[in-house]
Amino acid sequence: MSTTTPPAAAPEAPGTPEAPGAQETTPSPLLTALRTHLAPADVLTAPDAVEPYRSDVTGLRDTRPPAVVVVPRTVEQVQEVARAASAHGVPLVVRGAGTGLAGGAAAPADGIVLSTEGLAGIRIDADDHVAVVGPGAITDHVDLAAREHGLMYAPDPASSQISTIGGNIATNAGGLRCVKYGVTRESVLALDVVLADGTLLRTGHRSVKGVVGYDLVSLIVGSEGTLGIVVGATLRLLPAPTAVRTLVASVPTLPDAGRAVGVVTGSGVRPSTVELLNAATLENIDAHSGTDLVARHGGGLVLVRTDGPGADAEIALLADALSAAGLDAQVLDDAEGERYYELRRTGRGHRADLWSVGEDVAVPRSALVPVLEAIEEIGRRFDVDVTAVAHAGDGNLHPGLSVPKQPGETAPPARLHEAADALVRAALAHGGTLSGEHGVGIAKRHWLADELGAEQIALQRAIKAVLDPAGILAPGGFLADVPVDDVPFAADGTAVP
Amino acid sequence: MSTTTPPAAAPEAPGTPEAPGAQETTPSPLLTALRTHLAPADVLTAPDAVEPYRSDVTGLRDTRPPAVVVVPRTVEQVQEVARAASAHGVPLVVRGAGTGLAGGAAAPADGIVLSTEGLAGIRIDADDHVAVVGPGAITDHVDLAAREHGLMYAPDPASSQISTIGGNIATNAGGLRCVKYGVTRESVLALDVVLADGTLLRTGHRSVKGVVGYDLVSLIVGSEGTLGIVVGATLRLLPAPTAVRTLVASVPTLPDAGRAVGVVTGSGVRPSTVELLNAATLENIDAHSGTDLVARHGGGLVLVRTDGPGADAEIALLADALSAAGLDAQVLDDAEGERYYELRRTGRGHRADLWSVGEDVAVPRSALVPVLEAIEEIGRRFDVDVTAVAHAGDGNLHPGLSVPKQPGETAPPARLHEAADALVRAALAHGGTLSGEHGVGIAKRHWLADELGAEQIALQRAIKAVLDPAGILAPGGFLADVPVDDVPFAADGTAVP
Repeated sequence: MSTTTPPAAAPEAPGTPEAPGAQETTPSPLLTALRTHLAPADVLTAPDAVEPYRSDVTGLRDTRPPAVVVVPRTVEQVQEVARAASAHGVPLVVRGAGTGLAGGAAAPADGIVLSTEGLAGIRIDADDHVAVVGPGAITDHVDLAAREHGLMYAPDPASSQISTIGGNIATNAGGLRCVKYGVTRESVLALDVVLADGTLLRTGHRSVKGVVGYDLVSLIVGSEGTLGIVVGATLRLLPAPTAVRTLVASVPTLPDAGRAVGVVTGSGVRPSTVELLNAATLENIDAHSGTDLVARHGGGLVLVRTDGPGADAEIALLADALSAAGLDAQVLDDAEGERYYELRRTGRGHRADLWSVGEDVAVPRSALVPVLEAIEEIGRRFDVDVTAVAHAGDGNLHPGLSVPKQPGETAPPARLHEAADALVRAALAHGGTLSGEHGVGIAKRHWLADELGAEQIALQRAIKAVLDPAGILAPGGFLADVPVDDVPFAADGTAVP
Repeated sequence: MSTTTPPAAAPEAPGTPEAPGAQETTPSPLLTALRTHLAPADVLTAPDAVEPYRSDVTGLRDTRPPAVVVVPRTVEQVQEVARAASAHGVPLVVRGAGTGLAGGAAAPADGIVLSTEGLAGIRIDADDHVAVVGPGAITDHVDLAAREHGLMYAPDPASSQISTIGGNIATNAGGLRCVKYGVTRESVLALDVVLADGTLLRTGHRSVKGVVGYDLVSLIVGSEGTLGIVVGATLRLLPAPTAVRTLVASVPTLPDAGRAVGVVTGSGVRPSTVELLNAATLENIDAHSGTDLVARHGGGLVLVRTDGPGADAEIALLADALSAAGLDAQVLDDAEGERYYELRRTGRGHRADLWSVGEDVAVPRSALVPVLEAIEEIGRRFDVDVTAVAHAGDGNLHPGLSVPKQPGETAPPARLHEAADALVRAALAHGGTLSGEHGVGIAKRHWLADELGAEQIALQRAIKAVLDPAGILAPGGFLADVPVDDVPFAADGTAVP
């Protein structure tokens, strides 16, 4: 792909594009404007070059491809792209690595995709415990750069090896460690943002604290690319923990799981990870990874980590507290601890023979077990297989729903969507939210009014109109005014509620 | 004061007010509207009843008193007050306990003060680790109620014994423990907010995580009453620490202090308090509290606390690390630890014979010592006495500037304001902010453009206009369009930059 070539000087005037789309005979005024400011190789229109930018992990895609994918190399180029989009009234969607799970980066038909891959700089200012990065920086690369200075970047979404900071900011990404260190928002101190009209907004501060003016950083974080284009971020770093300790507790029943989580989160220790895996998840991992988790743990397990100088004392205290509560809890050695952690992160397989849905709801602490029970009941009611993993320390559940594909089926059966709908409504009924960390995007916007109500949606649209009055940025995103029954399905047939 | 009487039913029709202002002959349409919905005793107009509501700790007050102080007892009454203010185009300022340090609660001339003292309910939902409270709830009362369930409310501004949750939310208050537990924003999960037109907005969630829609909770927190009237808050609670340990390190010089703070914040331990007191502050405390801190610690001290199950191990580790860095560090017993902590919180006296200014800037970690050195230089340059206490773990400094009052002086000498101005500019020049936790209010708005710039101020005003199109809420607050050289002084002559 030509988009990874080094930056080239923008030509003085538009020349012949290197790889014009097959359909491109006379360049449109939009393309002409873009080629005035970006190198030819950074303005993609050929169908095969554009294709990889059309969707994210959901596979959700618009009816027609975008007119162009641009790969700006400088903030000024981003400003020019925004100005061109505004001048020509063309929708613009910002794209990181395309690891999103809600369709937020789906390319707009005939519009512009702005890929951040050319803005991936990472600078560590160790004295200030901050990283100053471009939106295209890979999450783990920021963490690795910080570790060279004894520091770390705490948020660790499961996609951190390939996801970008800009994408993490767009969705306010969580992860396994955020039960101790907070989600992405708690690690973003300042943002540089290009608004739809090309204005560069610098907001936030380099200090940990600051209360001057409205918190526009928090407004931008989690706004899914609808308010502005993040072109730079100042991230908070923390001392890297010198030790990490792990324990695993077997939880034969869901009430046992709830009790285990309650013991851990009520102990006063601040664990860095509290994950819950139910029986069906253990079966899935065993089938995919050749492990014997079901034999070892039966109905489920809770995986807990502590880190920092008190890690040993803290893990021992938690193991004692779990044992005192009648649960079988074992402190693992480093290698075993790492193995369990990696199995949790990556141990489940993708099954091509299933229609499947990955959910992301969050509920108050007291609702964890009732909602897990509701999930199992929903599986039985709709004849759908259910797994459940959860960032249990903060009530964030990722149930998986699946049904076997039948020969000749081109779309999942209705009961899969009905089960997902019942699950989301169960979470809402228990005081929860329809997304804990993945975002709303295109995939979940049909539930938006169920959580926010029409008045708050109107207010949020009015705020968007302040920053993006012409509605250029992600106009088809989570705030789009679309019919409530517009339940999208991915092009490959995977339902993505 | 009659405002603390129990709730009374609103009369069917306006009756004779119990305590009409001396100047009130025919009630204005505004007062008539308010008395339709609130009990007579909750609509104050008499000058002596209104007087205590005119200012906050700064003493800043408008040229004329407000037309009325209202004390609503229900959310519906707050909605009616907002509707009346909007209908009559009268400015409305929300007031908690009046402990603000920036004049944000100064009553608007001829306007409405809405006191939250009648909305002070506290409910602890221990299973969910949340408190559901009214804006008038006293901060420490929330914490005490939580402790009955083994939980705590973490934010602890120095005023927590008398300040309200609503006021803490308005300023995004910090405190001593926020170096470990975050500022007020990190503890607010959901808000009920009455908008200027009387609409009730419910935003946020009861779960710890949630990424659905723009983060309006974070937008409201720190907005100083300019966007809406907070009428209810769902607050995150944490397990109360079972143990708290304290150490004190002597730091003969400012570079020693910087080194001590660096050792502590770089250790991997997350201390719950890291306070720095310089020599002049120790002298001040000794003079006021009869202590011998100067004799014990000379040029300054750093006070560090750890809490939770690892508190003992962590404090020992920090003491060892400080000793290894060549500093004299002592772990204190519980009584001594508590004594030092209280001296830090409340040990300094108010001197009626001084003109004084309390500052609140925050700077990046690496700027702590340079800015402390700049503060001492500014003291010498302007012939002003300077003290410096700091929430050093997060770079939040509270320098105190003072000069002796001269006989016959009715206002502080210009050099006091010039010194404060130099101090704020030094913080900004080092990448800092003009307020770490007190807010901008009236007192610091003349510096606002120096930090945010004109474009961002315009953007923030446009966001305010979405929620408050008629400009009813705190129109004289931090976003007011006033001349840059409008440096206010309090009525009692104390300069409040």
